[in-house]
Amino acid sequence: MLIAATGTDGRFPTALTDAAPALRDVRQAVDAALAETLAAKRRSAAPALRELIDTLHGFLFAGGKRIRPVMCLCGWYAADGRGDPEPVVRAAASLELFHTFALIHDDVMDNSDLRRGRSTVHRSLADLHRSRGGTGDADQFGRNAAVLLGDLALTLSDELLHTSLTPDQLRAGLPVIDTMRTEVVFGQYLDLLGIGRPIGDLAHALELIRFKTAKYTVERPLHLGGALAGCSPAVADACTAYALPLGEAFQLRDDLLGAFGDPTATGKPAVDDFREGKCTVLMALAVARADQGQLRLLRSLVGRPDLTEEQADAVRAVLEATGARHAVERMIARRCRRALAALDRASFPRAATAVLRQLAYALSARTS
Amino acid sequence: MLIAATGTDGRFPTALTDAAPALRDVRQAVDAALAETLAAKRRSAAPALRELIDTLHGFLFAGGKRIRPVMCLCGWYAADGRGDPEPVVRAAASLELFHTFALIHDDVMDNSDLRRGRSTVHRSLADLHRSRGGTGDADQFGRNAAVLLGDLALTLSDELLHTSLTPDQLRAGLPVIDTMRTEVVFGQYLDLLGIGRPIGDLAHALELIRFKTAKYTVERPLHLGGALAGCSPAVADACTAYALPLGEAFQLRDDLLGAFGDPTATGKPAVDDFREGKCTVLMALAVARADQGQLRLLRSLVGRPDLTEEQADAVRAVLEATGARHAVERMIARRCRRALAALDRASFPRAATAVLRQLAYALSARTS
Repeated sequence: MLIAATGTDGRFPTALTDAAPALRDVRQAVDAALAETLAAKRRSAAPALRELIDTLHGFLFAGGKRIRPVMCLCGWYAADGRGDPEPVVRAAASLELFHTFALIHDDVMDNSDLRRGRSTVHRSLADLHRSRGGTGDADQFGRNAAVLLGDLALTLSDELLHTSLTPDQLRAGLPVIDTMRTEVVFGQYLDLLGIGRPIGDLAHALELIRFKTAKYTVERPLHLGGALAGCSPAVADACTAYALPLGEAFQLRDDLLGAFGDPTATGKPAVDDFREGKCTVLMALAVARADQGQLRLLRSLVGRPDLTEEQADAVRAVLEATGARHAVERMIARRCRRALAALDRASFPRAATAVLRQLAYALSARTS
Repeated sequence: MLIAATGTDGRFPTALTDAAPALRDVRQAVDAALAETLAAKRRSAAPALRELIDTLHGFLFAGGKRIRPVMCLCGWYAADGRGDPEPVVRAAASLELFHTFALIHDDVMDNSDLRRGRSTVHRSLADLHRSRGGTGDADQFGRNAAVLLGDLALTLSDELLHTSLTPDQLRAGLPVIDTMRTEVVFGQYLDLLGIGRPIGDLAHALELIRFKTAKYTVERPLHLGGALAGCSPAVADACTAYALPLGEAFQLRDDLLGAFGDPTATGKPAVDDFREGKCTVLMALAVARADQGQLRLLRSLVGRPDLTEEQADAVRAVLEATGARHAVERMIARRCRRALAALDRASFPRAATAVLRQLAYALSARTS
């Protein structure tokens, strides 16, 4: 099997790359499928279009944890998938291309400058346009070209999926993909609706992380892998019981990293979430626990596009002082335990269980 | 059959609605499938999300000629499709949802205000946000929500397609869809690259209309319908021979309507193409034939976002005086004849041939 639970020496891994050395094999196989897909498309594309594919290639290989492809393979093994894993690897790679579509559009919508430690796609395409003396508004060109590049990633995702699976796998896998995609769009829209709202709506923040992350990042990729192995509803349910708490823990960790993380490790500025006024559980808890002065400070600073580093430090101090940061840490630990308990109840093959256990620790405790 | 070549009384139809009264039945069946798809999604969506689906509904039913669905059904009949046409109608409707995705994103990219005689989607979503006192930049909200709404249309398109076809039809149809989508994205990017360029590149303008319209609007929908009927490569080739000249004629007509059309009929302001500096065959021909003074006028006015109606009239006068308008009319007539000749050589069933003949006239001569 491509994923093996080896080499962890009994210690808890703290980064995804430590989770299981053999996960590297999954990532390599997925990356090979991605590289091959892009190369084939590049060969058949008109010369003027190659820059589009090259930009996509640059983005895909600048980083990315390949969590969704890894989960897809885990779903396949959890459902006791046998035979050639190659179609599953390619389907898993198609999830990464879908994720790329979502990230590129997200960065356009958020007007972000940095992703994976480098310029976002719309910024690099704007720079490309500027550097060759293209006329018109270069930033506008960059945004529009990035929307198209996102669409291209989605199209390639579809094509990779459709050309990889057997008819039976297609019939089992497409409903999972369709459901996932609707959930992602709906989750993004809920996010958008939340941006204008007063910060502090905990119920909304929790609904968001379930839709936007728990289902999208963990549950549906597991379900896809499971479906490709022809899994029973019981196995799919067991995947859900593990996936939802873990996915929430993953997003809660993401929120903490967005507020307190090291930008050189996360690849994103640690002020973006504050500037955007992102509706996180962390912020909602702080608002709920804040005294008058702290509340005034949060309301006056969070959501300011021109927030300085010093002001961000003041926000961080409130997140600490109110105990919101520690409360989120406790929520993460609780959710990680729930995921592990679900794993104990599941009747997955032993090797699959071992890897999923390691992933639960790694995704809850990651630093990037 | 849903499409019947009846009721034209030997006269050449000049609008798509006149092409064959029974085409109305296709449109009604397609519209019913669209309405049903949206209603089902609305029922299962959280209340906050219903406005997204309602906006999509409003856009879909504000107009639209349903050309691609009609072509898809024609492809099915051309390939002698038999049995229940319901899956084909639903696949045809999925093309309309894909087209909706493309239009919504296109309007965001072009910053257009009007489509189908009413506010574009990003404008109405901005208005909605403003009217309920949403905070933040309402225009930014509108653009971002419109990108998501486009993505939702695409997702619904996929789901409708996937849930409608038999496994054999899926295997035959998906490659056509995948090819079409890549072509559309590539065509849009070529368009984007052209916007900054000096107007007058005829080869580029011709390449564009083949990619962006001829294949997308006529050839691939015919191929999809054909594939769902299990057509032979010979039938697909015969569809291509008809589709490419007709699709070019359709776009050339579109360019004429963009310059000289009646905005109350087209639903779009007749200055948008000029303001955008759109790289049309019409404009390229005018540039090639212009004298020094005319060229100066074109170069100084075309592409100005603040172009007035009077300045637009001056541009139109050059398009007339250089003979570019008449040259495009001749190109349309020539392409229409080529499409008809291809139809004569094809061995489609008689009824299908009759409808395709009527469509060739209608699409070449339409006024909206």
